[in-house]
Amino acid sequence: MTNLTQRIHIIGEALPNLPWQNKPEGYEFPVWRHSDNPVIKRNPVKGVARIFNSAVVPYEGRFVGVFRAETTNGRPHLHLGWSEDGLSWQIEEERINFVDEQGESFQPNYAYDPRVVRVEDTYYVIWCTDFYGAAIGFASTKDFQTFTRLENPFLPFNRNGVLFPRKINDKFLMLSRPSDSGHTPFGDVFVSESPDLVHWGKHRHVMAKGGQGWWQAVKIGGGPAPIETSEGWLMFYHGVTGTCNGLVYSMGAVILDRDEPSRVKYRASTFVLTPEEWYEERGFVANVVFPCATLHDAGTGRIAIYYGAADTYVGVAYTTVEEIVQYTIDHHEEIGDDSTIGKM
Amino acid sequence: MTNLTQRIHIIGEALPNLPWQNKPEGYEFPVWRHSDNPVIKRNPVKGVARIFNSAVVPYEGRFVGVFRAETTNGRPHLHLGWSEDGLSWQIEEERINFVDEQGESFQPNYAYDPRVVRVEDTYYVIWCTDFYGAAIGFASTKDFQTFTRLENPFLPFNRNGVLFPRKINDKFLMLSRPSDSGHTPFGDVFVSESPDLVHWGKHRHVMAKGGQGWWQAVKIGGGPAPIETSEGWLMFYHGVTGTCNGLVYSMGAVILDRDEPSRVKYRASTFVLTPEEWYEERGFVANVVFPCATLHDAGTGRIAIYYGAADTYVGVAYTTVEEIVQYTIDHHEEIGDDSTIGKM
Repeated sequence: MTNLTQRIHIIGEALPNLPWQNKPEGYEFPVWRHSDNPVIKRNPVKGVARIFNSAVVPYEGRFVGVFRAETTNGRPHLHLGWSEDGLSWQIEEERINFVDEQGESFQPNYAYDPRVVRVEDTYYVIWCTDFYGAAIGFASTKDFQTFTRLENPFLPFNRNGVLFPRKINDKFLMLSRPSDSGHTPFGDVFVSESPDLVHWGKHRHVMAKGGQGWWQAVKIGGGPAPIETSEGWLMFYHGVTGTCNGLVYSMGAVILDRDEPSRVKYRASTFVLTPEEWYEERGFVANVVFPCATLHDAGTGRIAIYYGAADTYVGVAYTTVEEIVQYTIDHHEEIGDDSTIGKM
Repeated sequence: MTNLTQRIHIIGEALPNLPWQNKPEGYEFPVWRHSDNPVIKRNPVKGVARIFNSAVVPYEGRFVGVFRAETTNGRPHLHLGWSEDGLSWQIEEERINFVDEQGESFQPNYAYDPRVVRVEDTYYVIWCTDFYGAAIGFASTKDFQTFTRLENPFLPFNRNGVLFPRKINDKFLMLSRPSDSGHTPFGDVFVSESPDLVHWGKHRHVMAKGGQGWWQAVKIGGGPAPIETSEGWLMFYHGVTGTCNGLVYSMGAVILDRDEPSRVKYRASTFVLTPEEWYEERGFVANVVFPCATLHDAGTGRIAIYYGAADTYVGVAYTTVEEIVQYTIDHHEEIGDDSTIGKM
């Protein structure tokens, strides 16, 4: 085991006002829950039954969220929400009005599992959209008022699109998880690059499901935007196992090479969070923790993780860059073709 | 019904030496079989049990084929073959040796259902390859001696990649059929564009399975490279129906808009060839006709279609541009979202 604790740090901006609680005394795991979870409960706004699997970013001194809002007719759409502290949220009653590049309304038939990633001065929303089946939808905004849809990056069927927060070798990079159009019983994570956010190529395999443990045996998928650290891109992701009564979603941690993110440097063999609390075990879909966003502070190394719980609630969990990166290094397991590099 | 017979013609080069037989007296359908089918029979060369679903192009006064060769260990690879008349073939015993852009050997784990399309002075081979599951493989050659692999255009899972034989609006265009990694029980045809054959985007839906008839109810997929005609891009494709004893593959015909090929102009409601003969009904996979290539002569409007039969043989069938285009116009049916244009 390598002890890198003294030099592990986040490369990025300070965010001293992110939500934070210290690790409880005697708690032995690398990720700990907010004491007052869930932070978004059932029926959070008129017409919305549940909010979960959602994205949060800092914006002009407060926080804005793009939320997967399961409307009371059972179809998911994306709603904005605002918060001063990242914990107490005002959710908008109307869904986001996406427009096309001519400014005409261009609403997705449905929209779920959003991620929001800032690259330079633009915020990109990535979600699962209907493109003759489940596919990755893509839009940009600079002000959280006008959301302009961009070309769908990939053919169907695909989910869990995650953009990197900066260009690498002058190219945009997006993770995704090719799937089928249903409750996909398989899935690995790939990365693709683009010079212009319109055309994508140089697709590479990043991570395989599987490993010695069974918690990620069925499929895996990207989570929040990767966090740049001194050891590489830290990414939380979801790993899924199967049981006689359905799937169970846990959270994993992986560190990808900074310059060549298709290369896995370290990948924790264990989950770092798994359904245990009532709001994770019980709900519309039992036994789901599904991370979609983080807030993180380069000054202190603190990380707040936003995750969907049981397809019903939003939970927050905490860690520090030192703790989670060291844990991932110490519990590294090479899985499947994770170490393959360069070739298609 | 429109009578366009007087002005329907192929836009392209003359190929007076293509294989040809006139339509049999009294035959009522728009596509007729070569009288001495199958033109490639079982065990065509040492180590190869069956050849089918293969591509043929004219090259330096004769014909060259890139053949799906099912080796005697049951795994498909691509073999070259040569012919003076397009009917009698010398198949090479060794598979094609693909190299990467540095010239190092880079063989696919398996390779099947090739198409070969010339764009300007380069021949592109497109096939189904193993990229952590079924995906579209891509290579180029100028001399049929060195085959250099290009970037896989799309993420898995996908099959039936078909390049257009010229750029449209200065972009390369490729049809494909997103799928799963097995015996996919669904599938529509999409088109994607590329400025550089590396990055692909602006994905559009082209054709849906379905329609009033049942012969293409399960899935469809592109066939030979589209033929440019005065009425639009003529494309033969495969349509699949399901039975209690498995799938049945027939051949359909469609005409796509010349400038915007995501738009279907005419699509025949009926198959234009369906398994009837012993070599189509019987074999490794019963009841398959699967077109992958055409030869066509702009001078006479003659078209020779190469199709796989029962995953065992290569068959040839004939039509003329006048006959098949008129048939497709006369039997037009709008299916599903075929007429959708422009939007994702």
